[in-house]
Amino acid sequence: MSKRGLLLVGHGSKLPYNKELVEATAGFIAERANEYVVKPGFMSINEPTVEEQLEAFREESIDMLVVVPLFLARGIHIDKDIPGILGLPEGSKEGTFQINGRTVPLVYADPIGSDPLLAELMLKNASDAIARLDP
Amino acid sequence: MSKRGLLLVGHGSKLPYNKELVEATAGFIAERANEYVVKPGFMSINEPTVEEQLEAFREESIDMLVVVPLFLARGIHIDKDIPGILGLPEGSKEGTFQINGRTVPLVYADPIGSDPLLAELMLKNASDAIARLDP
Repeated sequence: MSKRGLLLVGHGSKLPYNKELVEATAGFIAERANEYVVKPGFMSINEPTVEEQLEAFREESIDMLVVVPLFLARGIHIDKDIPGILGLPEGSKEGTFQINGRTVPLVYADPIGSDPLLAELMLKNASDAIARLDP
Repeated sequence: MSKRGLLLVGHGSKLPYNKELVEATAGFIAERANEYVVKPGFMSINEPTVEEQLEAFREESIDMLVVVPLFLARGIHIDKDIPGILGLPEGSKEGTFQINGRTVPLVYADPIGSDPLLAELMLKNASDAIARLDP
């Protein structure tokens, strides 16, 4: 079965926590969805960079590349910087990706955004904090 | 039934997207969990501020205040700035909150962090992007 590439893009940080989050989330995705080859890449400070991981995907036999930003909401990175690296015109979420002479579709997913699942996550963190209080 | 307060803390941004995200998520939480009185508050730039919402909670008949940061990962805001506003010593996640002479527990929840639910959200955003490609 041919697979899809999933590039999980993180912001990067001088502190270790953003990198840990992005790498752990890439691991969870790979466990859950074996139709994807998953690689984490960072906008700044941390490595591997987004550019390095794009190069790495050119070695994979994927039939599509999906770029998923692990960001809470839209902003300059989402609207300008990442599309710039991907070679997408601003506002466009579809392009192409070259793999050894083949051209496959590239799609650019939205950041987390407003989603009931995010509310569930917040409620879970609230419950965990309350549970710590009542030993 | 007495309720719990849930203060959802957002980062704040000059662009409108962080505020929209935090307010929409507070709305989802309020719909799903009627045991909570939910208020969104911001660390910087946007209003209402965290401090303003703490004052607003002093008017509510709640028996506990849970502070939940809508941040991806730990960092300076999570480890220092928010605990400072809440009057918690750094590293502590439990304190107290004064309401009209009554003292109720205050608990400080973790940010989003590594969670299988976050991986699900990323996979959903990936699927949505692919669905846009195949009309």
